[in-house]
Amino acid sequence: MESNLGLFTDKYELTMAQAYFKGGRSQSKAVFDYFFRNLPFQNGFLVFAGLQDFLLLLQDFTFNEQAIDFLHHDHFDPDFLEYLKSFRFKGTIHAMREGEIVFPYEPLLRVEGTLIETQIIETLLLNILNFESLIATKAARVRLAAGNRAVSDFGLRRAHGMGGIHASRAAIIGGCDSTSNVLTAFRYGLNPVGTIAHSFIQSFPDEISAFREYARFNPDTCFLLVDTYDTLNSGIPNAITVAKELERDGHRLVGIRIDSGDLAYLSKKARRMLDEAGLHYVKISVSNQLDERVIKSLIEQGAPIDLFGVGTRLITGQPDSALDGVYKLSVADGQPRMKISDSLSKTTLPGLKKVFRYSNGDGGFLADAIVLDDEREIEYIYHPFEKEKHFRVADLKKESLFEKVVDRGELIMQLRSVPEIAAFVRERLNLLPPEHKRFEYPHIYKVGVSKKLRLLRDEIVRNHLGEDAEE
Amino acid sequence: MESNLGLFTDKYELTMAQAYFKGGRSQSKAVFDYFFRNLPFQNGFLVFAGLQDFLLLLQDFTFNEQAIDFLHHDHFDPDFLEYLKSFRFKGTIHAMREGEIVFPYEPLLRVEGTLIETQIIETLLLNILNFESLIATKAARVRLAAGNRAVSDFGLRRAHGMGGIHASRAAIIGGCDSTSNVLTAFRYGLNPVGTIAHSFIQSFPDEISAFREYARFNPDTCFLLVDTYDTLNSGIPNAITVAKELERDGHRLVGIRIDSGDLAYLSKKARRMLDEAGLHYVKISVSNQLDERVIKSLIEQGAPIDLFGVGTRLITGQPDSALDGVYKLSVADGQPRMKISDSLSKTTLPGLKKVFRYSNGDGGFLADAIVLDDEREIEYIYHPFEKEKHFRVADLKKESLFEKVVDRGELIMQLRSVPEIAAFVRERLNLLPPEHKRFEYPHIYKVGVSKKLRLLRDEIVRNHLGEDAEE
Repeated sequence: MESNLGLFTDKYELTMAQAYFKGGRSQSKAVFDYFFRNLPFQNGFLVFAGLQDFLLLLQDFTFNEQAIDFLHHDHFDPDFLEYLKSFRFKGTIHAMREGEIVFPYEPLLRVEGTLIETQIIETLLLNILNFESLIATKAARVRLAAGNRAVSDFGLRRAHGMGGIHASRAAIIGGCDSTSNVLTAFRYGLNPVGTIAHSFIQSFPDEISAFREYARFNPDTCFLLVDTYDTLNSGIPNAITVAKELERDGHRLVGIRIDSGDLAYLSKKARRMLDEAGLHYVKISVSNQLDERVIKSLIEQGAPIDLFGVGTRLITGQPDSALDGVYKLSVADGQPRMKISDSLSKTTLPGLKKVFRYSNGDGGFLADAIVLDDEREIEYIYHPFEKEKHFRVADLKKESLFEKVVDRGELIMQLRSVPEIAAFVRERLNLLPPEHKRFEYPHIYKVGVSKKLRLLRDEIVRNHLGEDAEE
Repeated sequence: MESNLGLFTDKYELTMAQAYFKGGRSQSKAVFDYFFRNLPFQNGFLVFAGLQDFLLLLQDFTFNEQAIDFLHHDHFDPDFLEYLKSFRFKGTIHAMREGEIVFPYEPLLRVEGTLIETQIIETLLLNILNFESLIATKAARVRLAAGNRAVSDFGLRRAHGMGGIHASRAAIIGGCDSTSNVLTAFRYGLNPVGTIAHSFIQSFPDEISAFREYARFNPDTCFLLVDTYDTLNSGIPNAITVAKELERDGHRLVGIRIDSGDLAYLSKKARRMLDEAGLHYVKISVSNQLDERVIKSLIEQGAPIDLFGVGTRLITGQPDSALDGVYKLSVADGQPRMKISDSLSKTTLPGLKKVFRYSNGDGGFLADAIVLDDEREIEYIYHPFEKEKHFRVADLKKESLFEKVVDRGELIMQLRSVPEIAAFVRERLNLLPPEHKRFEYPHIYKVGVSKKLRLLRDEIVRNHLGEDAEE
């Protein structure tokens, strides 16, 4: 990666860091929480993704000589630049496991260290975690819609520049079976997939010559694209001819792909034509502006589709295109801190915190609790903003969702492969009750705070705004 | 960049290339066109961006040893891999100038070379050009809304991974004055901007201490963030106090920033409070989910805002998040080729083509013509799909929009700086009549084809579908 990745930051991180440095606070300690406020896609849950990418990039978050020169020309102070020259993140990070199913307001990651080091990694952290979590969540929705049918990520051509590399990783984590993105496959040890485009067909004088040529060199992995000229009158009949020729030579056409037109209508016609030719084994794949809602509708219409190729709307996270994750100071110089906003929902939670998850006997998730780090057992969780709402958790099965992943700068987390993380997502999603997984008005999952945390917050608000602010 | 950038591709580009190679067609020639069909944001024009980034990345589009090994494990043929080992793009590219104002269906770029080399660069080309053009166009809309007021890109934390590097470049090209993205500034020779976040304020026991400390180290570049606790009762009064202290020492507070609440209401209140304190020179900047429509509304409400910080919605191209640009074969083995689709609008234009632009006496753009490469003067342009519609261009001022940028693999284009490209966008946008620039139902700009091109297309369709397809 970049050897000047330290510059992958908003400038204000560096101006703040310089002010801390020059103000004699370079040894001051701080704690930041990463969390989000709104679920994308009106979904009932978020898939937390990007952790491992972020932690590996963090190892490269340094400033090389060219970077220091650039900042020097940008009028940064020589003493501060001397400090940046040897900068490496030496703090400690706790996080949820990558692939965890998570919810608004709960910390997904907690960063402890000096004020400077915890501050200047903000932009990189937000960028990677916001983006991969967005795409993994979109992919999870696509997977929920597709059921057991295969789903491939075909989105690289519409991805946002080099962001496509992380996007395809997140797509697999969230639930895609495969990706067409060769660089992502290379980096993360996956098998890329892909067959032919219209240009291949067009490059031959006629369609059947193109099909024959492709089948000749790929007799056992052949998918034929049937909509270059006329799907029903030319593409599928020609594919059937080539499938018969392959059979004669002891091979089997794997499938056809339809990339335009009414996919429900065409896939049904195609299935009938293939079956009538005795080609029951030939699969039907489709692509063209698919997303979870189109896939759901196709399946509801009984479309006999075996594989969905999903591109733009998955890889850019349409229609939301961003997760609103934020990174907020919760402790400075040993004191709990918070942002007190005019709107209660933008108020942050102070103090060193962690997260518990409560389940019923079968393991199904019931509620999460944001608690102070020294809390072990709590009886009730409280709604963060409506004090009257509370929920008894004392007798439920409890697990702690935080694990230490970086210890004083050292990456101590056991690295996992992308398929392992994807399997973890499946396992955890199975434990989430179905009412949180439906697309229309999903049931809101309970996330509460402990009494002790609530009292701490109320006390800080009172101290800032005066006694009348208590209620 | 990546030394294995050749893998930044959909796998099917490589399976097709291998089939061409094994079929003895590695010397076959082809021509591809890059164009788009739908304008994003219901806008009246597109800003063509990303050309220089793409051409520079194309120089690195090679396959290193690890890449070849990976493809070997993925069952590619050893002979073909031997070919890829020494692969470099050696073709020729014509393109519109980066920053040109362009329209649907016209080729923005034409790639000529061997079938293999023109095919396998497709994904990289589409990725970079689609993305940067999308963001530059969004930025141009933001600029149109903001008029002469300053606009900064603050989006990196919500950008799509490393795509943020290209995104901030495109934002400047399209019309932003500056960016907070330090790495983009470093790469492209810009000055990054940025001041402080809420965490800086929160890290101090009280707001005024934080303001004083920041002003102490940045006495001449100080923007104070006023909404951490209470904008009107604490933030602005404290900023005024610090501004007065700066004045006493011979400095001037540059501005304040408001990041939450009703920005119209708060900016008016803030302006009155600052003016009453004699601080007419202190600027007001705002941020928080801004886009061109919010900015337009704020200005219509008379909000006295000097600088807009625009983040998520700019840098991710919300609500569209992708341009639908495609890359289509137009010539193979010297023969014009096209995709004949069930829907006329998805039919492509065959043959080696270029683009003319016609203007009135003052230079205002009137219409573009897609013509065959050997055409010099044409009398009429024709609507691509409705034959009856035509428009006389014979007496208008004409310019050719294509220039050769790569000649047999060699980059021959004069490289331009980002500010130069941004200036070109401003110059060209000034020549576009205002009715194409309005947000609501912009007037559709005329793009026609020459009679010769239309006849060529009709002939190919007839040959494929039979005589009855003529009408």
